[in-house]
Amino acid sequence: MYTDDKGFSSITIAGLGLIGGSLAKSFHRLGIKLYGFDMSTKAINTAADSGIFHGLTDDIELISEFESDLIYACLPVTPCAVFLEDLKKLGIKTPVTDGASTKSSVVKAATGLNYCGGHPIAGKEVSGFENSDGNLFKGAFHILTPTADTDPYLCDKLETLHDAIGMKVARMTPEYHDRVFGSISHLPHITAFSLVEAVHEIDDNAFGFTGGGFRDFTRIAASNPKMWTDIFLDNKDNMLEFIDIYIEKLEEWKKNIIDGESTTIYERIDKARAIRQRLK
Amino acid sequence: MYTDDKGFSSITIAGLGLIGGSLAKSFHRLGIKLYGFDMSTKAINTAADSGIFHGLTDDIELISEFESDLIYACLPVTPCAVFLEDLKKLGIKTPVTDGASTKSSVVKAATGLNYCGGHPIAGKEVSGFENSDGNLFKGAFHILTPTADTDPYLCDKLETLHDAIGMKVARMTPEYHDRVFGSISHLPHITAFSLVEAVHEIDDNAFGFTGGGFRDFTRIAASNPKMWTDIFLDNKDNMLEFIDIYIEKLEEWKKNIIDGESTTIYERIDKARAIRQRLK
Repeated sequence: MYTDDKGFSSITIAGLGLIGGSLAKSFHRLGIKLYGFDMSTKAINTAADSGIFHGLTDDIELISEFESDLIYACLPVTPCAVFLEDLKKLGIKTPVTDGASTKSSVVKAATGLNYCGGHPIAGKEVSGFENSDGNLFKGAFHILTPTADTDPYLCDKLETLHDAIGMKVARMTPEYHDRVFGSISHLPHITAFSLVEAVHEIDDNAFGFTGGGFRDFTRIAASNPKMWTDIFLDNKDNMLEFIDIYIEKLEEWKKNIIDGESTTIYERIDKARAIRQRLK
Repeated sequence: MYTDDKGFSSITIAGLGLIGGSLAKSFHRLGIKLYGFDMSTKAINTAADSGIFHGLTDDIELISEFESDLIYACLPVTPCAVFLEDLKKLGIKTPVTDGASTKSSVVKAATGLNYCGGHPIAGKEVSGFENSDGNLFKGAFHILTPTADTDPYLCDKLETLHDAIGMKVARMTPEYHDRVFGSISHLPHITAFSLVEAVHEIDDNAFGFTGGGFRDFTRIAASNPKMWTDIFLDNKDNMLEFIDIYIEKLEEWKKNIIDGESTTIYERIDKARAIRQRLK
């Protein structure tokens, strides 16, 4: 049971979109009192209709008037960094966490706050509070990214909080987080976008013959452009390194096909299959 | 209703694996009499257990003794071409079709037979008659690849047959087939294999944090190595051209990320998303 003395009794959700709304609905079930901030009146109104917030504002200066013991920034990378800088300017002493998809730059922006970064690993192709879901995070990973400056007590409380909503919590440095998710999330998005672009260039009519396999494979190509632009640019160094490694693999495939190296091709497929089958 | 006078009354399935077995189960429901050929005793025994075959043999010379009005080769590309050559040597006059995944070389091997190529677009990650499924092809595409030499009457009868088991039938040249499926099936497999290889090289521990999205995206990496080795080598020229186009897209992503071209990145994601959303 999530109790007041070990946990947070009140949380301010900053950013009332899909992630913020889904976290709010999850936290509400734990009996946590909720406040909300968003610059969009539409988001405020949708959140108000849910009836789970004790207070809502579109004015960042009013956040300090909410009696919350955690501010949870649920914003894309670039606005998240701006928001954290603004909290510093306002002299906010309340503990802060966030859910941005890349961590290195956000963690730097938070220097000076009582802050521990995080990243709930879940999402949908749709966005907005209206699509939020209190079950979105069940069984998913939550990555905490404490640094040497992080209060260990805050990090532990955040672990308990996310554990209480059914998440698997792991801890890693912000830099390692950006390498891990650069490789298993950001690189796959680049490969899916590039595949859709390549087929479009080869023969747009070919899309007419695709089935469930191709749709599964390119599902992640239907992602929010603003969010992903920020992610690629914020995780720039890893992206460039990883795309190069990926292109090397493709060049090796070309070489194997040109040379008709059937044994090598068989072994590469067999090895990729074995790695993939571990994931089941 | 699939009737004897417009359709086939008896079919010999050559190759009693997943595809051959699934087609056999589909055709059985239409009341078609079935015969089977496979060089593997295990496959013959599994097929015999299904109770849907009137005759089974592992001796290709005995196929001519089956009273069937179609031979359907359900074999991977390379053994399929060998089988078609063998039918020619045996002087088989029965109409022949096949389901191999690439068509150009198979169609060439069939010259001299009463033949029309085809490709049922469905599959599973598992193989063998024991995993075959009479519903596998429902709603899927069947591509017929007639040439100037093909008897139009055979092509029409094959269209009626596949339509009767719930498939969407399309016709294209063997060469165009190999371009279409090179782009929407063979290229995606190369990209999935390469992605699994790249993540393995970057940090094998990263796989531990993957979720449903990554599993969906790399599902096709868990494919039969023998079958896919044949496909890549048989569709060599298209593969080399398409991998080059794909690498060009990746190089453009690298350039956009290096130069911080957020507007271009946004527009590329937005366009890929729009194309992908048409597929729903």
